[in-house]
Amino acid sequence: MEDKTGDAFIELMRTHNESISSFLGTKIVDISSGYAKVSMEMRPEYLNFYGVVFGGIIMSLADQAFGCAVNSLKYPSLAVQFNTYFLTSAYGGDRLTAEARVIKSGRRVSVAEVSVTNQDGKLIARATGTDIIVEK
Amino acid sequence: MEDKTGDAFIELMRTHNESISSFLGTKIVDISSGYAKVSMEMRPEYLNFYGVVFGGIIMSLADQAFGCAVNSLKYPSLAVQFNTYFLTSAYGGDRLTAEARVIKSGRRVSVAEVSVTNQDGKLIARATGTDIIVEK
Amino acid sequence: MEDKTGDAFIELMRTHNESISSFLGTKIVDISSGYAKVSMEMRPEYLNFYGVVFGGIIMSLADQAFGCAVNSLKYPSLAVQFNTYFLTSAYGGDRLTAEARVIKSGRRVSVAEVSVTNQDGKLIARATGTDIIVEK
Amino acid sequence: MEDKTGDAFIELMRTHNESISSFLGTKIVDISSGYAKVSMEMRPEYLNFYGVVFGGIIMSLADQAFGCAVNSLKYPSLAVQFNTYFLTSAYGGDRLTAEARVIKSGRRVSVAEVSVTNQDGKLIARATGTDIIVEK
Repeated sequence: MEDKTGDAFIELMRTHNESISSFLGTKIVDISSGYAKVSMEMRPEYLNFYGVVFGGIIMSLADQAFGCAVNSLKYPSLAVQFNTYFLTSAYGGDRLTAEARVIKSGRRVSVAEVSVTNQDGKLIARATGTDIIVEK
Repeated sequence: MEDKTGDAFIELMRTHNESISSFLGTKIVDISSGYAKVSMEMRPEYLNFYGVVFGGIIMSLADQAFGCAVNSLKYPSLAVQFNTYFLTSAYGGDRLTAEARVIKSGRRVSVAEVSVTNQDGKLIARATGTDIIVEK
Repeated sequence: MEDKTGDAFIELMRTHNESISSFLGTKIVDISSGYAKVSMEMRPEYLNFYGVVFGGIIMSLADQAFGCAVNSLKYPSLAVQFNTYFLTSAYGGDRLTAEARVIKSGRRVSVAEVSVTNQDGKLIARATGTDIIVEK
Repeated sequence: MEDKTGDAFIELMRTHNESISSFLGTKIVDISSGYAKVSMEMRPEYLNFYGVVFGGIIMSLADQAFGCAVNSLKYPSLAVQFNTYFLTSAYGGDRLTAEARVIKSGRRVSVAEVSVTNQDGKLIARATGTDIIVEK
């Protein structure tokens, strides 16, 4: 694993947009080594039958922050596992923010934790994922 | 907890469409007591920088099958936790299918497992979630 | 759900010992509403073939701190799900400490997070669990 | 990664005993490439305050089957993550059996699923873990 691989990823994320980001409307607010902050507005089309935001949308937001955080240190790398706890419902019109922090960055594997909060700072979800560094 | 609550949900899912389903393009192929099968085409906008399908999309598909399976027995209920393993990458143009089966249906909590496969039957992901029954 | 149920549990844990605690040699160092700290010495019999502490022992320590933390608020309750990340190996002779904090305490479900550290303050594992409140 | 590394592990487990196995009283009933079956009697000292088997004991049994299954294909390897669902309580005197099957065996990472059942074939727990192959 070479050094500086993460820096290239950070530069890439600051200057380019992923297809999935455009589709979901996620915005990378901040990214640095081992950290990322991504936000997203909860559109009406994200709601399920209960009138609350669909879990998959919250996981998508958390996953993007996760991916940014782990790749900012070791790039390229791929998530192998992702676990989410849904603590409070989110609603249409909410602006959710996901903050991810790497808690382990090894030669082969990284682990990062994510907090998803709403515009009032209320904790909506917590997530943790495992990321495998891809050898080039 | 009343009996037959799940039957009302099954009827609802057979006759109505959720906002999130229209947005993501998911289709409920099959739903019965404790089981659901949902499919989804992998559009170009679902890809990330690596050119593979974004993890959040796969989790969304798995989550919808999960939600259908657990609510088909106890309705209404809400996911509190969802864990996914990404086993093989999915690509643009793939048609993924998620099958969810309830493995525990208690008075307060349900657990269901999900397999996500592609059009060739290859296992793309496995997921398991915890669901809390909401008392009316 | 009655108030004060957790207080009875705290009193119980301060004055009595569980069979499993005696067997494993765990010690409840601190317990208060929504929080618990449990420590345990890594005996030679806890090692696996690699000469490091067996994962199940670390999960047992984390699980006990988790159980104390969630029951200190709502008692009786039972774990339905427990997820652990092993970040650094632990060795024979280490004294590990698990600290658990409840991050959600609802009417039906609680979620708590656990940090396991060694005698040097190094993070050995992180865990999160889901707990269901048992109605009396 | 060399071939045949798992075979050496299988031979090792058939002829030797780990310290932790002696301590917990686990018995490897069967081990082959990508599969392991481990059983364990639930002694009185494994019970918690509720009079049911402590979750950490069930996770220990599942973890040992998991470790045997993944190392039977790629050895040495180490668990980085382990997630357990507790579906039914186990009691003193029960004999629990954990069966683990590898569902992904990659160059860098393996994933295996575990079922824990009691002497009546009742499903007590399900678990899944992520395992990192250690390069020699």
